[in-house]
Amino acid sequence: MGDKHWKKPAAEALRVREDFRLADVDPGSTPGYTGDKAKAEKHLAKDLPRLADMQERLFAASHVGNASDSVLLVLQAMDTAGKGGIVRHVVGGVDPQGVALVAFKKPTPEELEHDFLWRIRKELPPPGFIGVFDRSHYEDVLIGRVRQLAPAEEIERRYQAINEFEQEIVNAGTRIIKVMLYISRDEQRERLTKRLDRPDKHWKFNPGDIDERQRWDDYMSAYQTVFDRTATAHAPWFVVPADHKWYARLAVQELLFDTLDTIDPQWPVADFDVDEQRRRLANS
Amino acid sequence: MGDKHWKKPAAEALRVREDFRLADVDPGSTPGYTGDKAKAEKHLAKDLPRLADMQERLFAASHVGNASDSVLLVLQAMDTAGKGGIVRHVVGGVDPQGVALVAFKKPTPEELEHDFLWRIRKELPPPGFIGVFDRSHYEDVLIGRVRQLAPAEEIERRYQAINEFEQEIVNAGTRIIKVMLYISRDEQRERLTKRLDRPDKHWKFNPGDIDERQRWDDYMSAYQTVFDRTATAHAPWFVVPADHKWYARLAVQELLFDTLDTIDPQWPVADFDVDEQRRRLANS
Repeated sequence: MGDKHWKKPAAEALRVREDFRLADVDPGSTPGYTGDKAKAEKHLAKDLPRLADMQERLFAASHVGNASDSVLLVLQAMDTAGKGGIVRHVVGGVDPQGVALVAFKKPTPEELEHDFLWRIRKELPPPGFIGVFDRSHYEDVLIGRVRQLAPAEEIERRYQAINEFEQEIVNAGTRIIKVMLYISRDEQRERLTKRLDRPDKHWKFNPGDIDERQRWDDYMSAYQTVFDRTATAHAPWFVVPADHKWYARLAVQELLFDTLDTIDPQWPVADFDVDEQRRRLANS
Repeated sequence: MGDKHWKKPAAEALRVREDFRLADVDPGSTPGYTGDKAKAEKHLAKDLPRLADMQERLFAASHVGNASDSVLLVLQAMDTAGKGGIVRHVVGGVDPQGVALVAFKKPTPEELEHDFLWRIRKELPPPGFIGVFDRSHYEDVLIGRVRQLAPAEEIERRYQAINEFEQEIVNAGTRIIKVMLYISRDEQRERLTKRLDRPDKHWKFNPGDIDERQRWDDYMSAYQTVFDRTATAHAPWFVVPADHKWYARLAVQELLFDTLDTIDPQWPVADFDVDEQRRRLANS
């Protein structure tokens, strides 16, 4: 952290706790942070090298050392909430060689033949990596629930299956950070309108986005159930107000720092005799 | 291009042509470019947004449109030549969502049970992506040849197999740019020494690197054979002098531009009625 504009650590201010009500959160707020846009953008940029450094340590510690730590950032949100911006402006600041980014789309017919976690398992970040899921297994209890893409009992079964799956991942050395970027319905209208106004953004627009938008309340209710059922001690949820993109990006960066600080990855100690290698090298 | 310091396009200055001799190339030279380090770094940074823009168009054209174009940048080099720096400083400037980066390590036992191209096929960039291979199928005719990891006839068979494989990829819509970053033996000694001098770089050092270095001439000869046998019209090789990192990075950026300019990806035209969607949105 270290920025005096954080009055409360982001992880504390944003964490979904018992009795959390999504409806009580203001998507235009900036929990824990007292700075403005200019300060937030400056702070984000200033801290990118530190994030890159920590990622490199994480990578080194597993690449050469025996560490099995990895980080998995799960991003969920309604359209236009800014998942892509997080990927570009926060994750984009670290070495691409240590990032495993996966965008989950509508499942393929092959994927639908398997349990909903089948395609997720295949994409888990290897040790040393920061994995990012742009959408995730949570789609199967969000759009899955809203659109009734599976029988009610199956949807019901999935919450517990997710908790067990995530516990297993955590046991294997992965820290999971689950983020919902929370925008308001009005802000989404504005952002979608902007996409329609710009021909170079038309490709990002799909008439189906409006269909989903018309089920806003159903989605919010599905998110609430997700928080009620899957905000666990081992895999916490953070709801990040996202009407201000600058806040959401800074907050997610802080959440990554919070987790990486817990791991505190160290440069591995050489398992060879440095002086001996110096001599060999000088003679080669 | 557009930079007056390029007297000759990088693609032209660096392309491996008939009768090319690696031994004739000076790893400390800067073919085609007359600027210095400061100018090159400025130019690299200035052009990153343009690269990001072209990548986004490429992505959009296949994501929404029907384009099947992709780009595959193959990076081969001796240790410390700067593959990682290319990935961080050139590829790192584009949206991670459109990049498919794969680092090929020593084959696993499972991979060794299959043909050498088996693991490569699984990692080809999807349409719209810029794929980057940090090492590649060429390892199987480089270290494979130098270390005799396969029978001589099998090594021999692979060159033609590679050419056919690459033709197949090109036919499917992928532009292949094959780059060898070429450093001098002295420069490598200097870079390896620096790694030994810094505890935070020890993890990048492996005593085996010196073993490979001791076979320098064998490697250069194996590269020469690669160029003789696999520098094709459909999948050209470019030898990029890399003793000056600033030159190598700028040159690879130019090679990417050269290829993306050929594709000239366009924003897809909306396949929906924009005004109708505006009305729907206003009412939602």
